[in-house]
Amino acid sequence: MSERDGYILGEEDLLPLSVGAAVLGTGGGGNPYIGMLRARELVRKGAVIRVLPLDALPDDALVSEVGGIGAPVVGIEKFEQGEECLRAMRALEELTGEKFAAMISAEVGGSNSMEPIITAAQAGLPVLDGDGMGRAFPEVQMTTYFIYGAAPSPAAISDDKKNVLIFRDVQDMYWLERFARDAAVAMGGAAGLATAPMRADFVRRVAVPGTLTQALNIGRTIAQARRKRQNVVDRLIATTGASLFFTGKVTDVRRELKGGFVRGEARIAGLGDWAGSEASVAIQNENLVLWVDGRPVIMVPDLIINLDLETGEPITTEVLRYGQRLAVIGLPAHDLMKTPEAMAVVGPQCFGYPELTFSPLALGPVTA
Amino acid sequence: MSERDGYILGEEDLLPLSVGAAVLGTGGGGNPYIGMLRARELVRKGAVIRVLPLDALPDDALVSEVGGIGAPVVGIEKFEQGEECLRAMRALEELTGEKFAAMISAEVGGSNSMEPIITAAQAGLPVLDGDGMGRAFPEVQMTTYFIYGAAPSPAAISDDKKNVLIFRDVQDMYWLERFARDAAVAMGGAAGLATAPMRADFVRRVAVPGTLTQALNIGRTIAQARRKRQNVVDRLIATTGASLFFTGKVTDVRRELKGGFVRGEARIAGLGDWAGSEASVAIQNENLVLWVDGRPVIMVPDLIINLDLETGEPITTEVLRYGQRLAVIGLPAHDLMKTPEAMAVVGPQCFGYPELTFSPLALGPVTA
Repeated sequence: MSERDGYILGEEDLLPLSVGAAVLGTGGGGNPYIGMLRARELVRKGAVIRVLPLDALPDDALVSEVGGIGAPVVGIEKFEQGEECLRAMRALEELTGEKFAAMISAEVGGSNSMEPIITAAQAGLPVLDGDGMGRAFPEVQMTTYFIYGAAPSPAAISDDKKNVLIFRDVQDMYWLERFARDAAVAMGGAAGLATAPMRADFVRRVAVPGTLTQALNIGRTIAQARRKRQNVVDRLIATTGASLFFTGKVTDVRRELKGGFVRGEARIAGLGDWAGSEASVAIQNENLVLWVDGRPVIMVPDLIINLDLETGEPITTEVLRYGQRLAVIGLPAHDLMKTPEAMAVVGPQCFGYPELTFSPLALGPVTA
Repeated sequence: MSERDGYILGEEDLLPLSVGAAVLGTGGGGNPYIGMLRARELVRKGAVIRVLPLDALPDDALVSEVGGIGAPVVGIEKFEQGEECLRAMRALEELTGEKFAAMISAEVGGSNSMEPIITAAQAGLPVLDGDGMGRAFPEVQMTTYFIYGAAPSPAAISDDKKNVLIFRDVQDMYWLERFARDAAVAMGGAAGLATAPMRADFVRRVAVPGTLTQALNIGRTIAQARRKRQNVVDRLIATTGASLFFTGKVTDVRRELKGGFVRGEARIAGLGDWAGSEASVAIQNENLVLWVDGRPVIMVPDLIINLDLETGEPITTEVLRYGQRLAVIGLPAHDLMKTPEAMAVVGPQCFGYPELTFSPLALGPVTA
C-alpha cells in the first residue's frame, strides 16, 4: 500500500465526514445527514468506498463530477429513489462511449459531499479526495473546474422518475446553470447532475485538494471535543486554521425564497469580547459577507461559519433564528478560489456586492 | 411521375399555404408569415420542397416531427437564426445513429406548418402531406402521434445560441411537454423541437392526412375570392366543408398570459341572422369552445375559426379586440382526433371544461 492507494471510508467515518461537510457548508449546501444514511446503508451492504488522492489516476483517466441540484429542503424529501446521480453519470458514459475511472464532488460543503461517495459506491469506483469549491456555493458554474475551463457540456440530469435529460451542447457554464436549474425545478425541485467528463490531469491541477479528508478531520475533532467535554469552537479554532471573528446573539433574521435561493440577512448583537458591537451576515443559501460594526471583515470566497456558541453545532441559514447565540468563525478559501479568474465567478461582485473588493481574511492562530 | 411522387411547393404556393395555415390555426398556432418568408428565401436560393403523400415512404423509413415551441409572439422576434429545428433533428440522428427520410409537421395550423418545410429544405428532404392535429393546439402531447403511442423520447431542442438539449428518457408525453416547455422558456421563449423518430407505417396510420394540401387550397380559395371580389367567408364555406355558426360584433375580450399561454374569453353580440343573440368564445392560445346564447355549439377538437366579416382575414386570439365584426365558422376535426383515445388528450375536459361532453359539430353545406 502506498499513499497513492488512499484509504477506505469505514462505516464509522461517515457520520464525522457529514458533520465536517456541514461545517464547510458555510450555512448552506444542504444537510448531508440523509446522504450519510444512504452511504452507510451501501457500506453495510458491502460497498467499498475508496478515497484516492488527486494524483492517483493516470493523466487521461476520466473523472465525473456528480452532485444533487435543487432546493436543499426538497432534496431531503425527494431523494429516496437514490440513483439519480448514477443514472446521470451513466448517460454521459453512453453518450461519449467512454467509462469513468472515479467520481469527484463539486462541493464538499453540505449534501454534495455525499453524492459522489454514494455514486462511487453504487458504481464500484473510487472517489477523489478533493472538490471544486472547498466549501458550498449556490450555482453550478462556481467550481474551480468551470473557473479553469472545464467544458460546460455534455452534462446530464436525472430524477426519481428515471427521466434523463442531456445537455449536449451548452454555450457556457452559465447556460448550464440555467438549463440544469430549470430542469431540476421541472423534476420537482431536486435531481442528480453529472457534468462533462474531465481528464485526471486537469482535475489534479484545478480541484481543491484533500477536502474530503479535511471534512472528516473537522468531524472527528468535533466528536472528540464533545467526548472530552471540551469547547468545540475552541478546538476547531485550534485545529483547523479557522479564526474567531465574532460572538453574539441573533437579533434579527430577514430571509426569503427568491429565484430558487434563500436570500437575506442576519443581525447579531455582540457578546463577550464583542459586547457593544453589532455584526450582520448576508445570505444567499450560504453566508456571503460578515460585517462587524459596518466594516466587512470576511467575504466570499472565504468561509463564514456560524456555530452554536455552546455546542459548536453548525447553524445553517435555514434555521437561523432570533435569540441564537453564535460564534462566527472564518476559514480562508483555497488559493485556487482567490485568483483573478476565480474572482470573476465567485468574488463578492458575483453575489451582488459591486462595492466590495475581495480582501482575504487574516489568518488566526494555527496550532494543528 | 405517379401520385406517390407528390408535388413540388413552388415559390408562389408559399404565401397561400401560410394563409390557409393561419385559418387552420383556429385563433392560435402563431403567425406563419415569418416562416413563409424564410421558406421563400430558401426556395429562391435553390431549395426544392417536395410534398409527399403519407403512403410514399417504405414502412421502416424514419420520419421526424419538428416544430417551434414557445410563445408565438416571441417566435416572431427570435427565430432569426433559422436552424433551430434542423439542429434538433440532427441531434436525434446522431443520438440514434439513424437518418431521417422525411419531415412532418406536428400542427398544420399556424407557424408550425412552415417549420418542417424549412427544415426539409435545409436538409434536402421531402415533407409529408399531413400533420398531427389538422389544426393548432397549445401543447406537445396534443398530436395524433402521441395519442396513438409515439415514444415520448428521445427528443431534442435547440435555440438560436446553438444550445442543444436532449430529452433522452422521458416517462410520458406530459413530461416531454413540461421539459420542452421549460427549456424553451430558458432559451428565451422560443426554440426548435424534434420529437422521437417515427416509422413511416406508423405515421401513415396516425397522421391527419393531406393537411398541407388542405391549407394550400384554403389559401388559394381566399386569394381567388379576393381577386374576383367575392365574399371570402361565403367562398370558404362553399369550398371547405366549414359551416357558419355566428356573425357578430366583439363586445368584450378578457385575455391574460398565464403559464406561458394566452387564456381568456371573447363575447360577441349577434348581427344579421344572429341579431339579438350573444356568443362567447373560450381561448387557450386557440379557440376552444363557442357558446351561442349559453349553449355550447362547437368545442375542441372541432375547429372554431374567427374571420373578419368583411375581409375574411383570420383573426388570431392575440388581436381580438372590441368592435371587430366577426364570422365564426366551424370545421369538423378529423376522425382521428375524435376517438376515445383522442378525447383523453384533446377533448374539452383536457382544457378545463369537465362539464362538456364532446359533441361533433353538424356538417354545413359542402359544395366543393
